[in-house]
Parts: sequence; structure tokens; C-alpha cells
Amino acid sequence: MTIKEIRDYLGRFFDFVELAGSEDELISAPAKIETAQKGQVSFIANEKYIKFLGSTEASLVIVHRSVCIDDFVQKRSFLKVDDPYTAFVFLLQKFATPRTIAAKGISPTAQIGEGVLIGDGVSIGAYAVIGDRCSIGSNSVIGPHVVLLHDVSVGEGSVLFPGVTLYDGVVLGQRVVIHSGSVIGADGFGFAPQKDGSYVKIPQMGIVEIGDDVEIGANVTIDRATMGSTVISRGAKIDNLVQIAHNCRIGEDTVIAAQAGISGSVTIGKKCLIGGQAGFAGHLELADRIQVAAQAGISKSFLQPGIALRGYPAQPMRDQLKYEAMLRNLVPMKDKIDRIDSEMKELKKKQENI
Amino acid sequence: MTIKEIRDYLGRFFDFVELAGSEDELISAPAKIETAQKGQVSFIANEKYIKFLGSTEASLVIVHRSVCIDDFVQKRSFLKVDDPYTAFVFLLQKFATPRTIAAKGISPTAQIGEGVLIGDGVSIGAYAVIGDRCSIGSNSVIGPHVVLLHDVSVGEGSVLFPGVTLYDGVVLGQRVVIHSGSVIGADGFGFAPQKDGSYVKIPQMGIVEIGDDVEIGANVTIDRATMGSTVISRGAKIDNLVQIAHNCRIGEDTVIAAQAGISGSVTIGKKCLIGGQAGFAGHLELADRIQVAAQAGISKSFLQPGIALRGYPAQPMRDQLKYEAMLRNLVPMKDKIDRIDSEMKELKKKQENI
Amino acid sequence: MTIKEIRDYLGRFFDFVELAGSEDELISAPAKIETAQKGQVSFIANEKYIKFLGSTEASLVIVHRSVCIDDFVQKRSFLKVDDPYTAFVFLLQKFATPRTIAAKGISPTAQIGEGVLIGDGVSIGAYAVIGDRCSIGSNSVIGPHVVLLHDVSVGEGSVLFPGVTLYDGVVLGQRVVIHSGSVIGADGFGFAPQKDGSYVKIPQMGIVEIGDDVEIGANVTIDRATMGSTVISRGAKIDNLVQIAHNCRIGEDTVIAAQAGISGSVTIGKKCLIGGQAGFAGHLELADRIQVAAQAGISKSFLQPGIALRGYPAQPMRDQLKYEAMLRNLVPMKDKIDRIDSEMKELKKKQENI
Repeated sequence: MTIKEIRDYLGRFFDFVELAGSEDELISAPAKIETAQKGQVSFIANEKYIKFLGSTEASLVIVHRSVCIDDFVQKRSFLKVDDPYTAFVFLLQKFATPRTIAAKGISPTAQIGEGVLIGDGVSIGAYAVIGDRCSIGSNSVIGPHVVLLHDVSVGEGSVLFPGVTLYDGVVLGQRVVIHSGSVIGADGFGFAPQKDGSYVKIPQMGIVEIGDDVEIGANVTIDRATMGSTVISRGAKIDNLVQIAHNCRIGEDTVIAAQAGISGSVTIGKKCLIGGQAGFAGHLELADRIQVAAQAGISKSFLQPGIALRGYPAQPMRDQLKYEAMLRNLVPMKDKIDRIDSEMKELKKKQENI
Repeated sequence: MTIKEIRDYLGRFFDFVELAGSEDELISAPAKIETAQKGQVSFIANEKYIKFLGSTEASLVIVHRSVCIDDFVQKRSFLKVDDPYTAFVFLLQKFATPRTIAAKGISPTAQIGEGVLIGDGVSIGAYAVIGDRCSIGSNSVIGPHVVLLHDVSVGEGSVLFPGVTLYDGVVLGQRVVIHSGSVIGADGFGFAPQKDGSYVKIPQMGIVEIGDDVEIGANVTIDRATMGSTVISRGAKIDNLVQIAHNCRIGEDTVIAAQAGISGSVTIGKKCLIGGQAGFAGHLELADRIQVAAQAGISKSFLQPGIALRGYPAQPMRDQLKYEAMLRNLVPMKDKIDRIDSEMKELKKKQENI
Repeated sequence: MTIKEIRDYLGRFFDFVELAGSEDELISAPAKIETAQKGQVSFIANEKYIKFLGSTEASLVIVHRSVCIDDFVQKRSFLKVDDPYTAFVFLLQKFATPRTIAAKGISPTAQIGEGVLIGDGVSIGAYAVIGDRCSIGSNSVIGPHVVLLHDVSVGEGSVLFPGVTLYDGVVLGQRVVIHSGSVIGADGFGFAPQKDGSYVKIPQMGIVEIGDDVEIGANVTIDRATMGSTVISRGAKIDNLVQIAHNCRIGEDTVIAAQAGISGSVTIGKKCLIGGQAGFAGHLELADRIQVAAQAGISKSFLQPGIALRGYPAQPMRDQLKYEAMLRNLVPMKDKIDRIDSEMKELKKKQENI
């Protein structure tokens, strides 16, 4: 791809794209600014990396429009944009080689149940098993070894990587991506304790609904609702090995990092950021745009939008940092007490001598 | 189902079932008390929900026999029982539509090894692989894509959801349920350190034994013993993404919530409740009926039955709550020290002036 | 196997192996010292177990060369070695019955893509799916239901248990073992936030490289790099349910216990020991031979080799233990403050009376 072609490609997404330097040089690959070679394109989106402006071997660097590149433009070309990071991401998409998960069409070894509806341009891989009455929207890709139990609905343009399992009744929106090993719609963990200490299973009669543009990592578990639906809303992103229990509702564009665990009937608002290994007690609610630190333990609802939470039990960041500072101050505090104590002894002695 | 039929059905499980209201109204589905509609049945098992007695649209409400329903019975019917929660659970089981995991009989695409014993009424799904000398008890369901290595034994009436893997020699009791993606009997994590810092693998020669009526969630891992057995006892319930290491013994009716991790050779008693994301160091023991809070870190044995544990390192609840209260009191404590300190300074000054 | 044969077998690994007792007795199985029976072999590698020297039923006991066995040798035989633990591990390997994961040769139901290279003596199990241009080194075992996307390379003598998924471009060294359900090479969790709060996926164009003699547990997730490689170096051992994010580098012979989570672009040195459920923030570095306690939260780099870390946020063990001791001392500290306060009051009163 020539630099001119890159400029034109980015021009489809951004109003402002300004080229300084050669139009015709060929660019073969994207690379990190530290390791980029001649013929490669990189980017600088963070002041920390401005130092590479003059030393990088990259033939093309994408920078913010405010960056002064006059001293460096003799040796390489620049594209100035308003958001160099996102511009580079779009460029990565351009360079990405397509991944074949399953060949076009339905593999002869795939097992398709009765009454299944399959849209145009669908790929279904080897040994996939599609239960009765499922529907698969056009241009979706069902990887090898995917299993859909009955009555599952997959929206258009979705991608299920090898070995995904969707239990009966799960509903996926459009352009949903689910990575290998994830299990959506298994039974919620509900058992009624009996007098003798044993348990009776509570039938899990609900489903899981996953909105458009959701991406789910590998080996994730999202349980079906006891009644009604467990809901993952449009645009949410869920990392590997996350657990989402029955009847949870995850808001739009909320991001959940790896190994976080959300107990039953938790409602999380829109655009929240949940850190890795964070844990949530059941039946609580988080407002929109809340940030939860990694390994935090959320034990109650937080209804003020936009706050940051940290610690166990988690509290708003300001309180928690004050608390942590106090903990770090225990040694000087102890020293102060000991000093006061010895002064006290001295005083008492003197007084007795009066 | 008519209300009369529901009363008769519950009468099979409970001594006391008393109907107030219509016998003949048709009930089509169960629902939560807040959202129930005409023609649906709901329940109240908690005082918090008593307020819905007069406002719910449900045609039938299951309540405790002590609830006074005289003011509300004109508009809907009531069934009085001793345990409305469990009664509702049984009713859910009645309403639950059967889930087809695999059709009756053995799928022509299932691969069955040599010397395999298969009981009556077994279902084996598409592409299941059953190793040599396995036995599968009558009426069990082996989902599509389940893999049993050799010498595995599955008891009667068990259900393995799609994609479960049982390594060689695993033994399941009767009515065991294992959800998708769980791996039972993989090698314990044992390596002998060598002088050069590398490791030699310790062969994991034992097995996993799982008792009757155990339910295991999705993407769980339970490792085989080095020698002998890792044991999950009758009635235990294990949630998604739990890790149970080699040579552990989990007691009867013990419940382990999602993402908890039990290190090697831990023994947990009967009827314990282990919170989500809790972690256990190796080679320790918990007595019966112990409750472990979510995210707790158990670093030593606790041999007194029935206690509750919390914190990191975990300690009995009373100590831990006192400790946490003390932590919350650090700010006033610091203030007090500062106040004493300035009083001290004043005192010293005065004394010098004497 | 006779005791003489065991002695000769161990002699292949160790310079010093000395037999006291019978040469000809038959040994049928290894066992723990507490439960060993006649005809079995056990070992003592820890002073705690020396008490069993005189009481064990084992016919053969492996001990350190320094152990004085004169009083016990009438009833059983002993093998003296320099490292009884490792000797016993080698003996376990001798007694281990071979596990059949897949029969020799390529299962007729395995799907092999175009341009796949398969070495001598390879086993490929039922329903395995091998993508285009993969290569599988000689004597490797690909279990049933394993899926390799395209361009995957598996080194000689490797073992992939049933249901492992390797995404496109993953490279495994020699003698790599991966247990069931693990997903190697899924997309890194990278999304570029947009002004409207939604996210654009960052293409994950890199791969995962896994070195020789690495063992990976069940249901592990190791993500591919955004650009370049996520690297697991030679000899590393990774337990069940571990998450390793994009662009991490794990050093040689480093051991990571179950459910630990390593965020993106973390570099961990050689011969480190990472405890279970430990969590790492992104973009940090650990030196060689560092030990991280279970459930610790590593929030910054630690560059001094050989230290131990613990707590949240984690700090060097000495600091952390001092800190934890201080926390345990809060109650006496509070008592001391109260005592000083009342002494102060008394003093002031006295002074006023002067």
C-alpha cells in the first residue's frame, strides 16, 4: 500500500488527514515505534514516545495534528490526524490478514437440526452441531466444534470461534464475537437448601440475551436467568475467564477485564470499566461510568455515576486512598505514641518531685 | 395446569398445602411477584415482598401458612405451605420445558471404544468420543462433543453437557450433572524442582471420584490425585470456573461459588459454604458447616465446625469484624493522638514555668 | 518389578544408589508412606515422616543416604539416594500406566487442511480439525476434538489433550503439553475508546510462541500479541484457569499457579514462582527468581531478583510482614493511647492543683 493509499483510506473515517512527505513510498506492515523498520508505518499517541520522532526507522508515522514535525520530515513521512491511536487501529484492520475460521458454506460434517433457519453467506465449520429451530443470521461464521442447543438465535455477521457452546434459547444480536471455550446460557447456580442440609435444584428457566457488537473472550461463562433474561447490552466487551451469574444485566459499552466475577442479579450501568479479578456480591447495582479497580470487592450498590471504586470492601477512590495512606502511616503513628508515652513518664516523675 | 392440579402436585411433597380461592383457574407459567401477570403463579418467601400481596397481578400466590391473606383473597388465590420457596422450586420443575441435549440412543457419529458398557435409555450425542472400557449407567445423557478417555465410569441418570472432558479413570456417581467445558481429571500440578532450576513432572497416577447428586458448573477444573483420589462427595454443588487441585476432598452437600480456588490436598468438611473467588493454601483442613466469605484467603486449618471466616489471611468473623472496625477507626485514633500530643506540649511548657 | 530392577533403573539417573535389604522381592506399586502395603514402594524426603521408618508396611522405602536405617532393615528394604523425592518421581514415571489419548496414526474422522506437514509417529484423534499449512512434529499426540486454525506449528513430542484450541499462527516448541479446554492465541483484549463511549476493536495481529518443555493446565487462556508475540519460555509450567494477556513474556522455568491473571505486556523473569489467584497490572516487569504470594496484587515493577512479594498492593515480604504485624497490633496500640490519655487527664488535674 502506498502512503497516498493510506491517506485516502484514513480519509474515509476522519475529516482531517494531512500528509507531510512522500506520497509514493510503499508501506508493507504496521509496527511499534520502537522497533519499526524502513517500509513500515507506526504512530505516536502519547508524549512519552515523542522522543522517537527523530530516531524511528519507520517510513511513515501517524501523529496528532499539533505535533511539530518540521525537523524530522526529511527522513520520513507523517500523517497528521486528530486521533492518531484510532487512526492506527483502523490501519491495523486494513493490514490484518483474514483469518479462516470455517470455509464458506456448511461443512458436510456439521449436524443441522430440524427447522433451522440459515441466512445467506453463512459459514458453518466441521463438526458443528446446530440444534432444532435455531436461526443463524446472514454472513455469520460458526466455527468448527461449536455446539448450539435448541432454539438459539445468532444475529447477522456474528462470529463464534471453535468450541463455543450456546445452551438452549440463547439470543445473540448482530456482529457478536465469542472466543473459543466460552459457555453461554448454562444453568444459574441456584439450589434451595433443605432441612437435612441437602439441596434441591432450582430450575433455570430463563435465557441469555446478548446485544449487538458485544465481544466475549475465551473460556467465559455467562449463566441463564432463573426466570427472564441475563442481559449483556450492546457494545459490552468481556475478557477471558469472566463469570457472569444468572439474572445479571451488564450495560452498554461496559468493559469487564479478565477473571472478574459478577454474582447473581447484579445490574451494572453503561460505560463502566471493571478491573481484572474484581468480585461483586449479589443483588447490587452500579450506576453508569463507574470504574472498579482490579481485585476490588464490591459489597454494596453504588448509585453515583462516574465514580471510581477500589479496595475490599470497595469504597470510592478518594476515601480508599486516604485509608491506604493512613495504613502506610502506621509506623510513624506508633513511633509518635511511644514518644508521647516516654515524655509522659518523664513529666509524671518531675511532677512527683515538685 | 389448574390451581387444583398445582395443589395436588405440591401435596405429593408437603404434608400441609391449603388452598384459599378458586380451584379451577388455569395457570400457564411461574413468574416473579413484581412482574407476574394474570394466569401466572408466584410466591412470597420473604417479608420484604409482603407488600405485593395486594398489588400483584398473579392469579395464584404461594405463601407461608402464617400469612394472613383475608384482605387479598377476593382478587387472587393463595396456597399456604410451610416452605413457600421450596414449594415454588418444585413448581418450577413442573413448568420447566424439557431440554434436549442429545436425542435418545447413540448418535451414529459418536465413537464408542472397545469393551464399553452402556445401560438402558442412554443418550449419546453427536461426535461424542467414549474411550475403551468406559461404562455409562442407564438413563444418562452424554452431550455432543463430550470426550471420555479410557476407563471412565458414569453412574445412572447423570448428564454431561456438550464439551465436557473426563480424563482416564474418572468415576462419577448417580445423577451427577456437569456443565459444558468442565475438565475433570486433568493432571495435578506437580513438578519436582531440579538443581538447575528446571522441573521434572511428577506423574499423576490417581483419579477423581465424584459422588451422587453432585452438580458442577461450566469451565470448572478438578485435577486427578497424584496417588489415590481427588474426592467430591455426594450432594456437593460447584459453580463455574472453580479450580480444585489434586488430592482435595470436598465434603457432602458443600457448596463452592464461582472462581474459588482450592489448592492441593485440602480437605473441606460437609455442608460448608465457600464464597466466590475465595482461595485456599494447600494441605489444610476445614471442619463441617464452615462459611467462607467471598475473596477470603484461607491460609491455615480451621477445625471448629460452623464458624464463619473472612479476610486475608482469613480469621473467624467476629475477630475479622472487630479488626475491620478498628481499621475504620484509624482516623479518629490519629486525631486523638495529635490532641494528646498538643496537650502534652502545653503541660510541659506549664511545668517548665513552675 | 524386583527391588534389584528398581535399583538399576534409578542408577540410570543418579550416581549414588545403595540398597540395604532384599534384592528379589517384587514391588507392584508406589504408595504414600502412611498407607503403603506389603509389596509396595514408598519414600521419605521430609523429617516429619521419619517416624514411619519403623511402622510402614512398605516393602521398600527410598530415603536420603544420611538416614540411619539399621534398626528397621530387618522388616523392609531401603534404597539410599541423594534426592529421595526426585528418585520417587522417576519411579512413579516407571509405574505409570500409559494413557491413550488418541490411537497411533490419523483418525479417519480427523479433518486435515491443505499443505499440512505431519511427522513420523504422530497420533491425531477423532474429530480433530487441523487448518491449512499447519505442521505437526514427529511423535506428537493431537487429542480428539483438538482444533488448530491455520498456520499453527506443533513441535516434536508434544501432547494436546482433547478439546484444546490453538488459533492461527500459534507456535509450540518440543515436548509441550497442553491440557483440555485451554485456548491459545485468542485475540488480545484491545479496544480503542471512541468519543461516543463505544469501542473500535484493535486487530490482534501477533501470535503466541510457546517454548520447549512447557506444560499448560486445563482451561487456560493465553492471548495472541497485538503485534509481535506473546511468549511463554522454555520449561515454564502454567496451572489451570490462568489468564495471560497479549504481549506478555513469561521467563524460563517460571511456575504460575491456578487462576493467576497477568495483564497485557507484563514481563516475568526466569524461575519465578507466581501464587494462585495473584493478579498483575499491565506493562510491568518482574526480575528473575521472584516469588509472588497467592492472591497478591502486583501494581508496579520489581527489578531485584530473588525477592518475595505479598499483599495488595504487593510489597517485599519483609515490609509486608512488618506491616501485617503492625495491623495485628492495632488493638494494643489503641489501648495504649487510651491509657496515655487518662494519665494525661490526671496529670493536668494535678497540675491545676499546684
